[in-house]
Amino acid sequence: MSDVKLDDIVSLAKRRGFVYPGSEIYGGEAGLYDFGPYGVELLNNIKKSWWRRNVQLKENYVGIDSAMFKNPRVWEASGHVAGFADPLAECRECHARIRVDKELAAIGVQADEKMSNEDLNKLFDDNRDKIKCPVCGKQNFTESKPFNMLVQSNLGDFTSENKRPVYLPGEACQGIYLNFKNVVDTTRMKIPFGIAQIGKAFRNEISPRNFLFRTRELEQADTQFFVKPHENKEAYERIKQDRWDWYVSDLGINPEKLRWHQHENLVFYASDAWDIEYSYPSLGFDEVEGIHDRTDYDLSQHMKYSGVDLNYIDPMTQEKYIPWVLETSMGMGRIFMAVMSDAYTVETMENGDTRTVLKLKPELAPVQYAVFPLLKNRPELVAKAREVYEELSKKFVCEWDDNGNIGKRYRRQDEIGTPYCVVIDFQTLEDGTVTVRDRDTTEQKRVKPEETAR
Amino acid sequence: MSDVKLDDIVSLAKRRGFVYPGSEIYGGEAGLYDFGPYGVELLNNIKKSWWRRNVQLKENYVGIDSAMFKNPRVWEASGHVAGFADPLAECRECHARIRVDKELAAIGVQADEKMSNEDLNKLFDDNRDKIKCPVCGKQNFTESKPFNMLVQSNLGDFTSENKRPVYLPGEACQGIYLNFKNVVDTTRMKIPFGIAQIGKAFRNEISPRNFLFRTRELEQADTQFFVKPHENKEAYERIKQDRWDWYVSDLGINPEKLRWHQHENLVFYASDAWDIEYSYPSLGFDEVEGIHDRTDYDLSQHMKYSGVDLNYIDPMTQEKYIPWVLETSMGMGRIFMAVMSDAYTVETMENGDTRTVLKLKPELAPVQYAVFPLLKNRPELVAKAREVYEELSKKFVCEWDDNGNIGKRYRRQDEIGTPYCVVIDFQTLEDGTVTVRDRDTTEQKRVKPEETAR
Repeated sequence: MSDVKLDDIVSLAKRRGFVYPGSEIYGGEAGLYDFGPYGVELLNNIKKSWWRRNVQLKENYVGIDSAMFKNPRVWEASGHVAGFADPLAECRECHARIRVDKELAAIGVQADEKMSNEDLNKLFDDNRDKIKCPVCGKQNFTESKPFNMLVQSNLGDFTSENKRPVYLPGEACQGIYLNFKNVVDTTRMKIPFGIAQIGKAFRNEISPRNFLFRTRELEQADTQFFVKPHENKEAYERIKQDRWDWYVSDLGINPEKLRWHQHENLVFYASDAWDIEYSYPSLGFDEVEGIHDRTDYDLSQHMKYSGVDLNYIDPMTQEKYIPWVLETSMGMGRIFMAVMSDAYTVETMENGDTRTVLKLKPELAPVQYAVFPLLKNRPELVAKAREVYEELSKKFVCEWDDNGNIGKRYRRQDEIGTPYCVVIDFQTLEDGTVTVRDRDTTEQKRVKPEETAR
Repeated sequence: MSDVKLDDIVSLAKRRGFVYPGSEIYGGEAGLYDFGPYGVELLNNIKKSWWRRNVQLKENYVGIDSAMFKNPRVWEASGHVAGFADPLAECRECHARIRVDKELAAIGVQADEKMSNEDLNKLFDDNRDKIKCPVCGKQNFTESKPFNMLVQSNLGDFTSENKRPVYLPGEACQGIYLNFKNVVDTTRMKIPFGIAQIGKAFRNEISPRNFLFRTRELEQADTQFFVKPHENKEAYERIKQDRWDWYVSDLGINPEKLRWHQHENLVFYASDAWDIEYSYPSLGFDEVEGIHDRTDYDLSQHMKYSGVDLNYIDPMTQEKYIPWVLETSMGMGRIFMAVMSDAYTVETMENGDTRTVLKLKPELAPVQYAVFPLLKNRPELVAKAREVYEELSKKFVCEWDDNGNIGKRYRRQDEIGTPYCVVIDFQTLEDGTVTVRDRDTTEQKRVKPEETAR
C-alpha cells in the first residue's frame, strides 16, 4: 500500500463522483472543491458519526450551529485581525506573490515565527540573490508585508466603498465562545461541560495545495470543553484518548497510520497542544486535528472586548471564575482525505486482474447495498430484484444497477466502497435465495433476502 | 391557536436554547441568528428528513455539496451581478437608508419591478413630500440608486485593494448547474434526473426582519430536475405534489396552514412558478418554498459564459439538447420557523394551569426520550434509571433529568417537544415496570422498559 499516491486518490475521487474541482467549467478556482454524489454521502456519514459521539452520546456536551458571520469585534478579540497573517512579497515583473518565510525555508534559511516584519525583510534582503520568482524566474521582488488571511466582505455595508469590513470566519469555533453564556443560561449544563459545532472557515491562503489538505474554504468540527481553572489536566488526557478512539473504533482507521505530535512552540496563553497526524499518501504524516489546552484566554478576551461578564458562578459553591477551555478542532476535508486514503486498496484478484476497492467501514459507505438483477431483459428477475431493493431501501441507502455484466457492476461498487452487493438470479426464482457478495473478501453466499440486512 | 404571536415563538426559541440572536454579547448583528442546542438538533432532523426523501429514496436523484465560493463569472451568468439589486435612497440628515419601492408601496404608490431607475426616481420625486425618514423623521433623501445584494469578498485577492470581487453565493443552487456535466460524466444518471443540495446563501438585505424569515445569512435546500425540452409539465406537477406531501406527511404540518400561490409576474425565461406558503404567526401566509419551471435558461447561460458545451446527448437516441430545469428551493430558516410555529401549542390542563408544548413529530424532536429517576437521592432508583437511559441511548437521542419535581421536569420536556418521558419509581423496583408519559395526551402507562421504544 505504500506506493499509493495522492494523485490516485484525487483521480478516484473525481472519476467516481466523490470530489470535483470547484467551478471546473469556468477553469476552476484555486483552493475550492465540490463534493459529488458519493462524496457528500461519505462526508455526511463522517459528520454524523462525529456528532453522535461528541454530542448525542455525551451527556455533558451540547451542539450548536452559529451563523458564519459575526460582529467584527469578535475577530479583534480572537487576535485574528492583528495576527492572522502570512508574510508576502510581490514580483515586480509578473505580479506573482510569494510566501517569503517559505521561500527562505526552501533555501535553508529559517525565519522565526515571532520575528518582526523589519527583521524578516533584513533576512529577505540578505538572500534575495537566491530566490527566484516561481512564475517568471526574475529576482525583482517588493519588500515583504504581512498579509492578513481573514477574508473580508461587505455584509451589512450599504455604502459604495467598504467602510466597515465584516470578516468571514477564520475559524469556526468562535461561535462557541459567543454562545457560552447563552448555553449556561438556557440549558441545564453545569461546568464541566462541552459545546460542539461543525462550521465553515475561510483563509486567504496564497498557495492552497494538496487536494483537500489546504483549501481556502474549509469545514471544521470543533468541541470546546469548559472546566474550572486548573482542573484541566485529567480532562485533557481523557479528551485526547477519546478523540484517538473515534478515529480507530468509529472510523476504522488503521492506527499505524496515526500518530501524536506535541507542539513545541505554544502560543503564549496555551498550556499544552497535541495534534493527531495521519500518514497521507505522498505527503506523509501531517495534522488532521489539534487538541488544545487554552486556559482562560478565549473567554477572557471576549469578556474584555464585549464588556459582558462571562464569569461562571458555580451553583453549588457560588465560586465565580472564567472557565478554562480544552479545544478539539478537526478539518473535515482532512479527515475525509484520511478516510478515503485509508480505505483505498488495490488488490490482485485470482484471475490476475487488479481491482481498486474502498474498504470503508460499512456505516460510512455512501451506499450500503447495491441490488442487481442478473439480467435486465428478464422481467421476472427484475420484478423480484425490485422487491428486494424496495425492502432494503427502507433501512439503508441502496443503489440499483441492471447495466452490463455482473463483474463490471462489482468493480464499480468496489470503487465507491459498497460493502454488500445482492444479486437476484434464476435460483432466486426457484428457492427464494439471493447471493450476497462481500466487498472485502469477494465471497458470495446464498441467503434469504431478509437475512441480507446486517 | 390564532392568538399565537411570532414573539411567542422567538421567546420560546431563546428561552429553551433553540435560536439565539447572532453575536448577542457584542450587541447582536442584524439578520444573523445562531441555532442553540435544541435548535441544531431540530434543524438537523429537518435536513435529514429532506435529504432522505429527496436524495436517498429517489433513485433518479443524487446529492452534492459544492463550495460556497465560485468563479465570479458564475454570478454574471446567473444574472445576479446585473440584476440582484434593491432601489435604495439615503437620508442626508441621519444616513439611514430606505427601500424606495417599499416606502412608495406603503403610501399606496406601486412601482413596477421592471421600471428603470430614472422612472423610479421620477415617481419618488413626485411623492417625496409623503415619505419621512423612519429614523429621524426628516424628508431630505438622496436619489434612489440600485444597490446590489450580492455580498462581495476578497477571497483569493492578495492586493491591498479589492480588485477582483469574489461573491458569496446569492443562492445555493448555482453549484448544481456547475456540476451538471460532472454528474452526467461520473455517475449513471440519465435524463430525466435530479441533483439536490443544501447550502448557504447571503443577501445584503437592508432590513432583515421577522426572525428567521428574512436574514442576511441563510441556508437553502434545493433540487434541480433536468428534463428533455418540453417534457416539463407532467414532471412539474409530480414535483409540486411531492413537495406538498413532504410538508404534510413527513413533517406533520397542518395542511390548513399551507397553501399554493402561483406567481403572476414570471421572469422572462420561466414557464411557471408556484410557492408553497405557510401561515406564520403574526405574518400570515408567506413563502416557504418556490417551485420553478425554468426552461433551459440556467444551463444555456453557463454554457455561454463558460464556453463549455453543456448539451446532453441521449445515450439511446443520440439526441442532443440543453436540458430544461425544474427547481425546488426552500429556505431552511423558513421551514424551521414553520415547523416550530405549527408545533407550538398552549393548553389548559385539568388543574387549570396552562402548559406550552411543542407537538413536533417524534422523528423531528430534538430529544426523543427523557429519563427521570423519581428521586435523585435514592441510589437504587438512580441506578435503575441509568440502566434504562443507557439502553435507550443506543437507538435514540435521550436526555437525563433528575432535578426538581416531576411536574417541572415534564413542563421543560414539553417546551422542547420531547415525545416520551420515562419515569423510574418505587414500583419499578418491585415489578420492573416504568411509566411512559405521552407528551401530547399527558397520559401515563406502565410498561416494561424494553416496551418503551417505539
